[in-house]
Amino acid sequence: MSLLSLNSYAAGRWIAPAGKTVRLKSAVSGAEIAELGSGGVDFQAMAAHARQVGGPALRRMTFHDRAFMLKALAQHLNERREALYELSYETGATRADSQIDIDGGIGTLFVYASKGRREMPDDTVYVDGALEPLSRSGGFVGQHVATPLTGVAVHINAFNFPVWGMLEKLAPTLLAGMPAIVKPASQTAWLTEACFRMMVESELLPEGAVQLVAGSAGDLLDRLTGQDVVSFTGSAATAAMLRGNRHLIAQSVRFVAEQDSLNASILGPDATPGSAEFDAFVREVHREMTAKAGQKCTAIRRILVPDAHREAVVEAVAERLRKTVVGNPRSESVRMGALASLAQRDDVMARVAELAGEARQVFGNGDGFSVADADARAGAFVPPMLFVADDPDGAERLHAVEAFGPVATVMGYRDLDHALALANRGGGSLVASVFTRDPQVARQAVLGAGAHHGRLYFANRDTGKEATGHGSPLPHMVHGGPGRAGGGEELGGIRGVMHYMQRTAVQASPDLVAGITRRWVPGAATLEKDTHPFRLAFGALEIGHTLWTGERQVSLDDIEHFARFTGDTFYAHMDEAAAAANPFFPGRVAHGYLILSFAAGLFVDPEPGPVLANYGLDNLRFMEPVSPGDTLKVRLTAKHKTRRNEEYGEVRWDVGVYNQDGKQVAGYELLTMNAM
Amino acid sequence: MSLLSLNSYAAGRWIAPAGKTVRLKSAVSGAEIAELGSGGVDFQAMAAHARQVGGPALRRMTFHDRAFMLKALAQHLNERREALYELSYETGATRADSQIDIDGGIGTLFVYASKGRREMPDDTVYVDGALEPLSRSGGFVGQHVATPLTGVAVHINAFNFPVWGMLEKLAPTLLAGMPAIVKPASQTAWLTEACFRMMVESELLPEGAVQLVAGSAGDLLDRLTGQDVVSFTGSAATAAMLRGNRHLIAQSVRFVAEQDSLNASILGPDATPGSAEFDAFVREVHREMTAKAGQKCTAIRRILVPDAHREAVVEAVAERLRKTVVGNPRSESVRMGALASLAQRDDVMARVAELAGEARQVFGNGDGFSVADADARAGAFVPPMLFVADDPDGAERLHAVEAFGPVATVMGYRDLDHALALANRGGGSLVASVFTRDPQVARQAVLGAGAHHGRLYFANRDTGKEATGHGSPLPHMVHGGPGRAGGGEELGGIRGVMHYMQRTAVQASPDLVAGITRRWVPGAATLEKDTHPFRLAFGALEIGHTLWTGERQVSLDDIEHFARFTGDTFYAHMDEAAAAANPFFPGRVAHGYLILSFAAGLFVDPEPGPVLANYGLDNLRFMEPVSPGDTLKVRLTAKHKTRRNEEYGEVRWDVGVYNQDGKQVAGYELLTMNAM
Repeated sequence: MSLLSLNSYAAGRWIAPAGKTVRLKSAVSGAEIAELGSGGVDFQAMAAHARQVGGPALRRMTFHDRAFMLKALAQHLNERREALYELSYETGATRADSQIDIDGGIGTLFVYASKGRREMPDDTVYVDGALEPLSRSGGFVGQHVATPLTGVAVHINAFNFPVWGMLEKLAPTLLAGMPAIVKPASQTAWLTEACFRMMVESELLPEGAVQLVAGSAGDLLDRLTGQDVVSFTGSAATAAMLRGNRHLIAQSVRFVAEQDSLNASILGPDATPGSAEFDAFVREVHREMTAKAGQKCTAIRRILVPDAHREAVVEAVAERLRKTVVGNPRSESVRMGALASLAQRDDVMARVAELAGEARQVFGNGDGFSVADADARAGAFVPPMLFVADDPDGAERLHAVEAFGPVATVMGYRDLDHALALANRGGGSLVASVFTRDPQVARQAVLGAGAHHGRLYFANRDTGKEATGHGSPLPHMVHGGPGRAGGGEELGGIRGVMHYMQRTAVQASPDLVAGITRRWVPGAATLEKDTHPFRLAFGALEIGHTLWTGERQVSLDDIEHFARFTGDTFYAHMDEAAAAANPFFPGRVAHGYLILSFAAGLFVDPEPGPVLANYGLDNLRFMEPVSPGDTLKVRLTAKHKTRRNEEYGEVRWDVGVYNQDGKQVAGYELLTMNAM
Repeated sequence: MSLLSLNSYAAGRWIAPAGKTVRLKSAVSGAEIAELGSGGVDFQAMAAHARQVGGPALRRMTFHDRAFMLKALAQHLNERREALYELSYETGATRADSQIDIDGGIGTLFVYASKGRREMPDDTVYVDGALEPLSRSGGFVGQHVATPLTGVAVHINAFNFPVWGMLEKLAPTLLAGMPAIVKPASQTAWLTEACFRMMVESELLPEGAVQLVAGSAGDLLDRLTGQDVVSFTGSAATAAMLRGNRHLIAQSVRFVAEQDSLNASILGPDATPGSAEFDAFVREVHREMTAKAGQKCTAIRRILVPDAHREAVVEAVAERLRKTVVGNPRSESVRMGALASLAQRDDVMARVAELAGEARQVFGNGDGFSVADADARAGAFVPPMLFVADDPDGAERLHAVEAFGPVATVMGYRDLDHALALANRGGGSLVASVFTRDPQVARQAVLGAGAHHGRLYFANRDTGKEATGHGSPLPHMVHGGPGRAGGGEELGGIRGVMHYMQRTAVQASPDLVAGITRRWVPGAATLEKDTHPFRLAFGALEIGHTLWTGERQVSLDDIEHFARFTGDTFYAHMDEAAAAANPFFPGRVAHGYLILSFAAGLFVDPEPGPVLANYGLDNLRFMEPVSPGDTLKVRLTAKHKTRRNEEYGEVRWDVGVYNQDGKQVAGYELLTMNAM
């Protein structure tokens, strides 16, 4: 392989290594593989390009436009995975490791593409939470909305996931409508640069949406303001240095951190040797120790097991470790590759020495392990190393020192509370897992350890093969943890998108809230027209278009007829004395479903037209009883429209049913599918 | 008034001033009024007391228990307001000012008490967001939950709202289940201490839930960990110092900041002199300049008006200022009292001198204004001061220097984009207001300025008297802003509670998620019993209790009969050819409401019993068409229970309607009210 020259991509140009350059080496062979250096980059111009070109272009798109863009990007990368796998081997990763990194990153794009279309509007203003009534008569209301920050997101990524690390931050950032500058860790930057290059070459992203710093970030952070975001993944020491940056503090720059974590996995008190849970636990511990050679911020570092089963667990895990072939990740027999660099190997061994003072090593002597198909000294190889702590309560470093490699310690516990207390000794973790089938154990774990963990993962025979793994952050769920883990939150669906938007509390009249959100809200103006709204195509229907129907009286005969027809002979409809004894009714009342059905009879326009189907109904509340002799009348108002495809879109209608006194007896939102 | 000795309240004991004490003076007369000093406080013991006594006691309560506690506390304080008003005069506040502070604080408790019961469960685990399907078959799912942090919340408050400042932070903290240590600003601490004393004497809060530091916070911050929170309101300089604290950074202590803000108010392009909006704008500007003598972090500092109306605005505001009597806040004629201290007066005048270089003073010469019923030199009086900027674009300090008193500057703008750009020059604000009746202006303001503002307040003739005011943070809406405003968020309903809880992503089998959240979820075990679930009292009904009904065939006659009876003769039910042409239907289909009605006929138990009423329905989706000849069958599962009062509670049922092939044709959540 000839030496790769890793370019930065700044203000629309590729910039070759310059200034103080660094040579990167293969983790497997030690051969020089790439060179990088950001001496030629003008960071002020880079930030300005993001703010003046990338941001405005992204903000002109709706959330759905951006979601489609992410989907196309995911498809583009998906077709080019093989080239990335090739480059990934040199980071020490096996094919399976690369799938976590590369396929995992692409999968994150797909999930955000899907969530963007399902959970965000086809608009440029995001509506956050419910309308808040702020006045008695409803003439003044509150609505939280969110709009993209107008600055740039700086993503500072760790070396262990060169692709996933970039894409899991880019997906929510771009969906929010914010441009990003990606600063990968140098050690494995050739893989990030290759994937980044594919994105640029796809021409799927608007100019300025993404830029890359291959090398040091220079003075970039000193260029940031309160409209910018720094999202960091890496060590606690680096995080502390960045957080303490006076300029970032003075400007209240948003800072999201995901740092060290001494994650625990707990074998539940109910999971005895021989149980499916015990076996799943052993498999998972082994997998987490060896996947990515243990270089995962979510890897299991502390293995908490009932005292009685400690030796059984040690033996079962060691048995699996014995069969794990370490070596050249290109070899088919190899299950665990190399650490990312020789420096990383030195660091892991130094940390292991620290741990050794508090635990006995029961597997993986650093000297004299065998390495398949590679030079053990030239590549960054270490064996998996398993420790046992005899005094986990007295230990300090076992709960505080992270050896970022295939290293874990088994600790015995007395009872579940003890196990949770030990898990919490990590001082805040990204994840803890519990292998249990007992819902009470699960609830106790949430109440006893939830505050200390960003994620709690439960596995057992029921989750079986569908379980996604202790160590896999999913785009749907938040990734981050309190305290030692950095206190940040990434991903978590739309929650992760909000880090790149400003939430704004809007207080206004209903008319203005409707204008801002493009949703009709109660109290806003209605448009009454000659045309029945069901006769208007999706595009022609205006928000606020309202139909007031004719009236229909509800007779006692109607109620009795409906009861006999449907079989719903609930006493409140059939028995005057019993109904009157009920705290909510004056006497016999109409069925709620009769009210709904008569309402539909009043507003439905029967002939074929743009309305294709009533496909659902939300937030139905019966507000007042309807007695025999009452007369109903219905208001149907177009509330919100969401395009679904080229043929049709969803229309949400606000429906109010009123009695002869003008009192609302029922309210709901009706969903129809309307042709374009 | 004899000298008040302000005590700290630490670890269950009142502790008199000790060590380096400070004497506080009346803002009105300059007389010494109180003494404080926290030299006798053991901060480590205080933090330990919160963690070991207050936290566990609060966490044993459900969210509803805590909400009832807040309501009782609000009622207790509400009855004792008069005593607080008396003490408030000496801070320089008029009666109207005190109402903002005292009644506003009590009102915040009431709102959180109400939201806690309506929006949080009667449980100790909060369910955050929707269930996330994580596997194809549904055997592995995700659910975010939140539990209280196990540390202590340290509230560092500003001098300007001695009561509201304490209560607006305490309400979400206590509702979350977290104990607090309150550290008021010294200048006005006598009022905070009096209100705090009332809370302790009420005996409504568990021991350790609240503690008070009267004086310096000593080494308290160095005692904190990642399970603790610092919530700060005050100057940007102090915030930067605290944020830069190495210990807080190393421990990833959550830090919420609300600091300086150069808030703008914009007279909309549509709001010409003589319009209701123009008049409302002038009234609001005057009110915001003079309420609390301008000592509000949300006060209007920059008055943005169309160039053409600049002089009209200046004249109208000046006219109102001329009529504003400044002086002893106890006097009935007085509309504006004193600043909180002589030091504050010096600070305001120094800032005014800075502004004067960029703007002309058109009202309120610092010398020679008249002060009613007080000694102008002994008290901290200043006149309202109005400036006009002729070059708002060229100005720097006008957009950056906050004179924390009755000081504002009028600036002309060319068009709305120019106005928004000037508003954004504040570098991040708590609030901007726009006086407009045009929904397009409102939307443009959100898209153009939302990213720079935590709140956008719109007022016009429609919001009229119901509008809550530019400067009033409401507990329902977030309070905070990006950049210069500190980047924090407080309040905002349950959002504000989340600052004191840890969000945890739970991944598990449906059974375990049901056990953790006490809500049945699809895929979780169901309990089938001999008893119809409608025959069980609220307390006896178990989550997961499931009824499978008998079957009912839907005939073409049923459909036609239903159509005639209800009047819903939509073609999809009546016309085979037209229905078949619809993309969603195979031919004529049953009405959705017919399916709902038949489902109720199948599951309803007619005789009087614990089920009192069906009061609503959520998330109804029709999943498959039902054709003539299809047979329906219903599953009714108790999903969640919420006690409402001593007599009854709400039961949420998960309902599935299935056809003869076992395919689900409809799904919804049914709400009933069930007797205890």
